[in-house]
Amino acid sequence: MGKIPTMFCLRHLLVLSLALNMSLVLRIVYESEQGSKLFWLKNKIGTTKADEVYKKETHISQKVLLSVSNSSTHEDNQEGVERIINLDHGDPTMYESFWRQMGDKTTITILGWQSLSYFSDITNICWFLEPEFAKEVVRLHKVVGNAVTEGRHIVVGTGSSQLFLAALYALSPQDAIKPISVVSAAPYYSAYPLMTDYQKSGLYKWAGDTQSFHKDEPYIEIVTSPNNPDGYARYPVVNRSEGVLVHDLAYYWPQYTPISSPADHELMLFTVSKSTGHAGTRIGWALVKDKVVAKRMTKFIELNTIGVSKDSQLRAARVLKVVSDSCEIESSFEVGESFFNFSHRVMVERWKQLREAVQHSGMFSLPSFSHAFCTFSGQMSGLQPAFAWLKCEQGIEDCQSFLSRHKILTRAGKHFGFGSDYVRISMTDRDEIFKLFINRLKAIR
Amino acid sequence: MGKIPTMFCLRHLLVLSLALNMSLVLRIVYESEQGSKLFWLKNKIGTTKADEVYKKETHISQKVLLSVSNSSTHEDNQEGVERIINLDHGDPTMYESFWRQMGDKTTITILGWQSLSYFSDITNICWFLEPEFAKEVVRLHKVVGNAVTEGRHIVVGTGSSQLFLAALYALSPQDAIKPISVVSAAPYYSAYPLMTDYQKSGLYKWAGDTQSFHKDEPYIEIVTSPNNPDGYARYPVVNRSEGVLVHDLAYYWPQYTPISSPADHELMLFTVSKSTGHAGTRIGWALVKDKVVAKRMTKFIELNTIGVSKDSQLRAARVLKVVSDSCEIESSFEVGESFFNFSHRVMVERWKQLREAVQHSGMFSLPSFSHAFCTFSGQMSGLQPAFAWLKCEQGIEDCQSFLSRHKILTRAGKHFGFGSDYVRISMTDRDEIFKLFINRLKAIR
Repeated sequence: MGKIPTMFCLRHLLVLSLALNMSLVLRIVYESEQGSKLFWLKNKIGTTKADEVYKKETHISQKVLLSVSNSSTHEDNQEGVERIINLDHGDPTMYESFWRQMGDKTTITILGWQSLSYFSDITNICWFLEPEFAKEVVRLHKVVGNAVTEGRHIVVGTGSSQLFLAALYALSPQDAIKPISVVSAAPYYSAYPLMTDYQKSGLYKWAGDTQSFHKDEPYIEIVTSPNNPDGYARYPVVNRSEGVLVHDLAYYWPQYTPISSPADHELMLFTVSKSTGHAGTRIGWALVKDKVVAKRMTKFIELNTIGVSKDSQLRAARVLKVVSDSCEIESSFEVGESFFNFSHRVMVERWKQLREAVQHSGMFSLPSFSHAFCTFSGQMSGLQPAFAWLKCEQGIEDCQSFLSRHKILTRAGKHFGFGSDYVRISMTDRDEIFKLFINRLKAIR
Repeated sequence: MGKIPTMFCLRHLLVLSLALNMSLVLRIVYESEQGSKLFWLKNKIGTTKADEVYKKETHISQKVLLSVSNSSTHEDNQEGVERIINLDHGDPTMYESFWRQMGDKTTITILGWQSLSYFSDITNICWFLEPEFAKEVVRLHKVVGNAVTEGRHIVVGTGSSQLFLAALYALSPQDAIKPISVVSAAPYYSAYPLMTDYQKSGLYKWAGDTQSFHKDEPYIEIVTSPNNPDGYARYPVVNRSEGVLVHDLAYYWPQYTPISSPADHELMLFTVSKSTGHAGTRIGWALVKDKVVAKRMTKFIELNTIGVSKDSQLRAARVLKVVSDSCEIESSFEVGESFFNFSHRVMVERWKQLREAVQHSGMFSLPSFSHAFCTFSGQMSGLQPAFAWLKCEQGIEDCQSFLSRHKILTRAGKHFGFGSDYVRISMTDRDEIFKLFINRLKAIR
């Protein structure tokens, strides 16, 4: 090999070295800022899983994009057959896009040795209640102004279903010779009768619609407000001295209804499924005035499931925190929109589309709602419930069967103690499903 | 400034530059390996929370070290008063030290938009069962060899408590005019009678000890093996044609008992609380042979809690995976000890200490167990149950009261359908508590 001049060699080595410096500096900056996501994913959940999460995320994003670019009816035609649209359940997947936007704000990391114990706080009546979750429940109610929390005991449950059963258990006279009657005004949530009676309990028994309840004896009345399925505000109906009330306020949130004042009842039920869309966590909570009732509800959950998942309580605490944060510092919030702004906006838009489709078809009718002042938003607002309580017109007696022939699955009115000319339709599914539904409905003549 | 010779300057700049390169390369390596933990913590759970977790971890480690360096009796004396030792509940916090050793292997990260839906796998009978969890359940049973999973339906529950109730519901004749009898051989798990009867169900009713069950009619027998509270292997007792069996195998794991063969019963219950110590996740599972029974159990959980926390299922899947990994690749496993080696070793040591303390005191007696071959470990092994079934001797009739005067809280024999001269004592609490207990027991004369 020929001899390379020293000066040339050194100068070039220096340039090379400086270039290497620069690339290394850039790599550090890049890894800190851009590469961090895959970096922690691989560190925390293993390389394969991290890749899976990435692939899944990419795949879903592509799918969502695809459904936006293609019209829904076009999608039907492409497949050659009509796709079945299942709106029987109120699966709140509509909120997914908001939580995707939130990115890491709502990510939770649980270490292997955390939350091993059955106990969360042995000084609390509800000894399995995570203090962090309780704190965020109180904060969110304060931020939204939809419930009084002062002087209340919080009881956490595996969804509000478990709390519904816990409330029946707690409010039933334990030494009665026959079960107490449980009533609710029709149309009532279809699960109430099933949940009340499936164990054939000697403590409580479903007694149906409040209108047909004339017994002069103790009873439990379930007041669901806004009501599932029809969305109307509800008040106690029976109003007799021997009655006790359970207020199911799962839908008393600004995206569904104007907040009139903080609810201030003896026993109120809430759930993250309907407020934030995290149904998979199975977390609900009760605000309970009476200490003895709170103790008995806690006892129920102890005997039923020995407490409630700590992992999901911690996750729910994080979710509620982000919702409160998004409301309190909306103007400075990175994404620029609070959770309730997002969800209210989407619900308003969906109800507009639904009413247009119903008008276009001429085959159906919907409840009409008047506007009211919302103390949360500070302005007049309409109602846009999580379910549409749709009535088939034109002499169609079995609305559920009629729609199922068009491959739209709904829940028949009879399950809600009402007529078969009605169905309940979920309004909280994913955008692509909702679009498909609207187009399908429009086409029915 | 004097002029620096060019050659000198270039050579030194090159050295400087190369040194800088080296330091940058080292920084990248360092940040990848050492700095990753706080890095992801801060990225994922926010800076403040990450610092909290770090502080908490450090604090607990210090506390544990402190309790190791100070003898337990010394701790009592330092405080001037005897500390209350609560061994009434079987809180499995003993396993915490293993999971701390595992570090990030068992850490789970859940993104804000994950698992929003109620549904996990609508093609499965148990539609809320996370496929990843189901996979790890099957794998672990294969690794340990303690249960047949082939031809079984997996039903996940909020702890095995919920599955116990689901099993009663599923096995009860739905159209019977009176509730089916539920029996178990005394001493039986103290929660069975309470859980069976708290709802005053018309489907099933607690009928007590198998020995006193002489009715010629359908019944459900609970076979708990190894038994809670006494640790013995159990077999059906009543053996009549009209009976159905539920096998509660919560403790059929190598740390508690020799594995004789894969359990192969109609309906078997397991839980992570007792197998891995993750009681706070509230995750249990049932292996069910009959499809109709699996469907009915699923229906029960649907009406009870509309499914089971997805977050906890995902976490439990990770935990089971790490346990299986630790067994399958024990020799190459970083920490050098499988989960069952660790837990078996600790339980053997604890039982040795307990037997010594009992002998030293002369006031008590314990069950005696014979050794048997364990197919999992491939050697003869003794029994070291999760609970000690302790008998007070010397004419002490109320063992629970006697021990509580020494500030040791236990569960009285009467709750297990047995004599008050017996108590159940948890063997799975933290090291420092167990030490304190042993020293306290030794001192009783």
